[in-house]
Amino acid sequence: MDIVIKAGIIGASGYAGCELLRILLMHPEAEVTAISSHSYTGKKIYDLYPNFYQVCDLEFIEDTEVIEKADIIFASLPHGLSEKYAKTCVEKGKKFIDLGADFRLDKEEDYQKWYGLDYNLPELHKNQVYGLPEVNRDKIKDATIIGNPGCYPTTITLGLYPLLKNKLNVSQKIIIDSASGTTGAGKNLSDGMHFPRCNESFHPYKVGVHRHTPEIEQELSKMNEKDVHITFVPHLLPVDRGIVSTIYVPVDKSLEEIYETYVEAYKDEQFVRVLPLGQVADLKFVKASNYCDISLHMDERDHTLIVVSTIDNMVKGSAGQAVQNMNIMYGLDENTGLNLVAPSF
Amino acid sequence: MDIVIKAGIIGASGYAGCELLRILLMHPEAEVTAISSHSYTGKKIYDLYPNFYQVCDLEFIEDTEVIEKADIIFASLPHGLSEKYAKTCVEKGKKFIDLGADFRLDKEEDYQKWYGLDYNLPELHKNQVYGLPEVNRDKIKDATIIGNPGCYPTTITLGLYPLLKNKLNVSQKIIIDSASGTTGAGKNLSDGMHFPRCNESFHPYKVGVHRHTPEIEQELSKMNEKDVHITFVPHLLPVDRGIVSTIYVPVDKSLEEIYETYVEAYKDEQFVRVLPLGQVADLKFVKASNYCDISLHMDERDHTLIVVSTIDNMVKGSAGQAVQNMNIMYGLDENTGLNLVAPSF
Amino acid sequence: MDIVIKAGIIGASGYAGCELLRILLMHPEAEVTAISSHSYTGKKIYDLYPNFYQVCDLEFIEDTEVIEKADIIFASLPHGLSEKYAKTCVEKGKKFIDLGADFRLDKEEDYQKWYGLDYNLPELHKNQVYGLPEVNRDKIKDATIIGNPGCYPTTITLGLYPLLKNKLNVSQKIIIDSASGTTGAGKNLSDGMHFPRCNESFHPYKVGVHRHTPEIEQELSKMNEKDVHITFVPHLLPVDRGIVSTIYVPVDKSLEEIYETYVEAYKDEQFVRVLPLGQVADLKFVKASNYCDISLHMDERDHTLIVVSTIDNMVKGSAGQAVQNMNIMYGLDENTGLNLVAPSF
Amino acid sequence: MDIVIKAGIIGASGYAGCELLRILLMHPEAEVTAISSHSYTGKKIYDLYPNFYQVCDLEFIEDTEVIEKADIIFASLPHGLSEKYAKTCVEKGKKFIDLGADFRLDKEEDYQKWYGLDYNLPELHKNQVYGLPEVNRDKIKDATIIGNPGCYPTTITLGLYPLLKNKLNVSQKIIIDSASGTTGAGKNLSDGMHFPRCNESFHPYKVGVHRHTPEIEQELSKMNEKDVHITFVPHLLPVDRGIVSTIYVPVDKSLEEIYETYVEAYKDEQFVRVLPLGQVADLKFVKASNYCDISLHMDERDHTLIVVSTIDNMVKGSAGQAVQNMNIMYGLDENTGLNLVAPSF
Repeated sequence: MDIVIKAGIIGASGYAGCELLRILLMHPEAEVTAISSHSYTGKKIYDLYPNFYQVCDLEFIEDTEVIEKADIIFASLPHGLSEKYAKTCVEKGKKFIDLGADFRLDKEEDYQKWYGLDYNLPELHKNQVYGLPEVNRDKIKDATIIGNPGCYPTTITLGLYPLLKNKLNVSQKIIIDSASGTTGAGKNLSDGMHFPRCNESFHPYKVGVHRHTPEIEQELSKMNEKDVHITFVPHLLPVDRGIVSTIYVPVDKSLEEIYETYVEAYKDEQFVRVLPLGQVADLKFVKASNYCDISLHMDERDHTLIVVSTIDNMVKGSAGQAVQNMNIMYGLDENTGLNLVAPSF
Repeated sequence: MDIVIKAGIIGASGYAGCELLRILLMHPEAEVTAISSHSYTGKKIYDLYPNFYQVCDLEFIEDTEVIEKADIIFASLPHGLSEKYAKTCVEKGKKFIDLGADFRLDKEEDYQKWYGLDYNLPELHKNQVYGLPEVNRDKIKDATIIGNPGCYPTTITLGLYPLLKNKLNVSQKIIIDSASGTTGAGKNLSDGMHFPRCNESFHPYKVGVHRHTPEIEQELSKMNEKDVHITFVPHLLPVDRGIVSTIYVPVDKSLEEIYETYVEAYKDEQFVRVLPLGQVADLKFVKASNYCDISLHMDERDHTLIVVSTIDNMVKGSAGQAVQNMNIMYGLDENTGLNLVAPSF
Repeated sequence: MDIVIKAGIIGASGYAGCELLRILLMHPEAEVTAISSHSYTGKKIYDLYPNFYQVCDLEFIEDTEVIEKADIIFASLPHGLSEKYAKTCVEKGKKFIDLGADFRLDKEEDYQKWYGLDYNLPELHKNQVYGLPEVNRDKIKDATIIGNPGCYPTTITLGLYPLLKNKLNVSQKIIIDSASGTTGAGKNLSDGMHFPRCNESFHPYKVGVHRHTPEIEQELSKMNEKDVHITFVPHLLPVDRGIVSTIYVPVDKSLEEIYETYVEAYKDEQFVRVLPLGQVADLKFVKASNYCDISLHMDERDHTLIVVSTIDNMVKGSAGQAVQNMNIMYGLDENTGLNLVAPSF
Repeated sequence: MDIVIKAGIIGASGYAGCELLRILLMHPEAEVTAISSHSYTGKKIYDLYPNFYQVCDLEFIEDTEVIEKADIIFASLPHGLSEKYAKTCVEKGKKFIDLGADFRLDKEEDYQKWYGLDYNLPELHKNQVYGLPEVNRDKIKDATIIGNPGCYPTTITLGLYPLLKNKLNVSQKIIIDSASGTTGAGKNLSDGMHFPRCNESFHPYKVGVHRHTPEIEQELSKMNEKDVHITFVPHLLPVDRGIVSTIYVPVDKSLEEIYETYVEAYKDEQFVRVLPLGQVADLKFVKASNYCDISLHMDERDHTLIVVSTIDNMVKGSAGQAVQNMNIMYGLDENTGLNLVAPSF
């Protein structure tokens, strides 16, 4: 094959950005042609991350040059910064995948409420596509602007999609208890991520007020064709990578019926594995891969379904899903460059 | 003071047993006079745990000798083994604190259902006292047989006591999502505790079927004077020590009202700390101490109260609480030998 | 390319074996046609390691079938078991790479002394090749039986090769202080690998008597063309993967001269990175990759060279190096299937 | 006993300072009367470290007030700041223990070379005592200014004292390979201590140029009554606490002879445990205690003695040793308030 996708990364010095670079370096049909980072312009990627030494010689350049040099642009930026890059891409006929939060919410009022900012270029958002391939594959194919899903929302939407789409829940109220590894908080230093503070520790944070809440409710409500309300509590896990969401839903069907629905819903999906009944999903076995593992359990005593859904937050929860979206947009096999298997230990 | 409590430990080679030994060695009013362990009879404690080298010279002896040599006997054994020791203690006028599960459940049918065994000496169980000092202090004072609470139940009962006692919950159905450090599983080798399997991992286990479920429901129902139903999902946390329970309860009071109820309920308690509103309980800050830290949060969007309750599973969740019970039984200040402060890191 | 290497793995249930399987599954020119494991015959690989669920459907079969079905056979077995498989492979014209210790030592007396066993088929050992590509590439090309190097020896031989080959050391006595992650100890349960025992712990083991000692001395002596004596102390590190060796050698050249020698020696090597002076090798940045990172330092106060050499023990220290050897034996580009980049975090 | 030692801590917001506070809060003969911290004046200790909530109500006040309110002042400060506090203490007849580096080096030229600063008040240093009780107990009794030893030096000087004092080494050149937990680096944020960077990582740092080098050489040379030269390489260990030093010394005596010398040298010491031959010192079993555990090993092949010495860097390596010094200065039993036993897990 002599057509190679030219990819650029804006914000490549952050964790999601450099993981994306790492995955794309191993992708047989893509070439990363340019990267940028406001804080490190002029530096080499390996000055920041020695894992790239003698592997990748790219230097952080200006954002505008990144767009020039690439056909598809990935942005991994703090919220509020992506619109202008998306606009330029649209104007220049390039594809844009935003790994941040700026193109995930359909309603500007949700963005205003949870992120405290307006949509400056509201027309851009009309065509944004929520980049969850298992749900929106057809829209992704023709999309120009993709809002790549958040890490927590990916576990939760995939964990509930077959249930809600088939309306097997008997309540619109769902409790979601999640735990994420520390890379979810990014590379900025903070007291909470200082090793002696974080190690051998565990606690919830942003209890009931995490910014992924509206994104989750939006997508669950669309699936269920009714307003779904969640209580969402994330926890900080003293590990590098991975998210586990444990989800509590009242149901009135049997576990076996629900299990069959899940198996059917995901039977053609490469990256969602519904584990055999009796097994429990564990982040260990999705680490460094693009899989979402789902296990189903029932508290038989009062018919509460417990869905356990786990991903690597930096892969299926971010960079890997972005590459999966890219593959779809370019008509490639969805697992091109993503046939990553988690280590056994 | 020249009266020193003579304490014996049956099953001192397990994690709870040797942590109890460690705490009692630092207790100013108690002396450990004898320890036993079926697997290690004839060995010294420091042969097994080098932390005791030149600190404690005790040798594992026969169970019967332990009872002879002590006034109060602690048993830390697999379930089903404690009754005979309790019986001997009662006959000889000695006090008995069981760190296992054999004297926690009021109804034999619950024990039969969840542990698969009968009460062989049912009369013993009529006088058993559930050793949660903050709830049952008066009964503990005069008790002969104490069932020391399980680790998960301690976080949950203390976390819900003010709420349920004052009937501030609007539903009898409660969702409890807990995570425990690995010492909770004891010292027996297993695949799940093999370092490369457990490290950098996280997953639920015994989903909806954990044996602490009936103990939790029993105690919550007594507090609430109504049948309380829970869905309880424990997770395995890749840390040495500590439990965090995140508890979801529908309420119709404000967070401030509920907070005041908690502060009032625990204002005279030495080992329960209700954190100021806005703070989040973290196992880091109770580690190696006998504290239970509780923080309260509200998902204001639909009035779901979230209680976060954390302890060190080996101290307030086991050995420390046993010593607290002992102190009460002997009329000592409750924090004698328990003024342990968690490290800051 | 329509020629695909048919690979078989004997002992695929161990850590090295299943890591090899994982790497070969991502190799574009190889296919794993069969795997065996004495303990799990009849089971699927994913029954043991759920990371392979829906990825690999292989079942553990008999050893003899594995040899039948493959052109190159990898064995990952306890010492003393590999000779018979090597013999069969030689007889059937197949290639054999032993990931264990049975084909590493040139002198039977060393094997007898350190492993307590004889060479039952001594003629096989005459043609064994020590599979360290950077030193023995030419011999590997035509080899039939490869002794894949030990994990510690890989860090140490690569760390000292340019120095000893060029005789820049002024003493034949070298101190080597190494630390390895826990996967080095394999998947068998032991007290030392029980999570609460191993986590937050650090200690040396097999002080001065580790079985890798004769292998290290053998290879260093060949490089130096003189008998080299080492004192080697391995430590157990509470991490999943990786080895760091810190090596102390008296020298009389300047750090800059020595550095140039290293850069020159490895300038054509794809998997050895000599870090710029001033940087320190860190296992974080070789994890999950086939790189060996080397940094050089000088205690200027008395001219002691300090070499820091780090690898992923399961990749360059085992499965990855085996694949590198396979690539050489089949005339493939050495990094085929091995262009694995360590994550940045 | 009605005499209680009034202790003050200058720099109580750092890790050593707050660990000292924690230990002194459990000390039966001491009361912490005041604490200070330049960055947090006016805040409560529990605002910074929630482990102290409802345990200690102290507020950070001005340094000068701390000296007024206490009889013994501990300072835990960056180097270069302690002299003025020491001077005031001397003038006011108070005792001063410096947990930093300002009163450890006998020769100003060493301080200038390694710390880049002068002794501004050189006369103060004439009477400083190096606070290693096992070596300098008699001097500590009557000291006014104590330089509390560094963490690495404590493991190394205790690990070599019997050997060097008895001149059993056959070379003045010693190789020391150490590893420290992350609390050794203090509470200031840095890239190297960011959880995802530090976790699952291991590497040396300040190779051959660590500031503890002159302190170690000074003390070893005094013991040996000859100039001892070391090469010292510290490593960063991804754990909270603890140091292990692995020390290589050429000898010509047998392991048994050397072992007897160690046992004899430390037979009256409460805090140094010479482990039985065949055992290996492990930081797990000294954690949270004031013990230094030492194990001895011999590479018989060329008579290299390997000493393994381990402490908790925050206790025997800092705050605990400071309290031990205080106990000696006040004529208390040396283990008053220090009968801390490491947990078994």
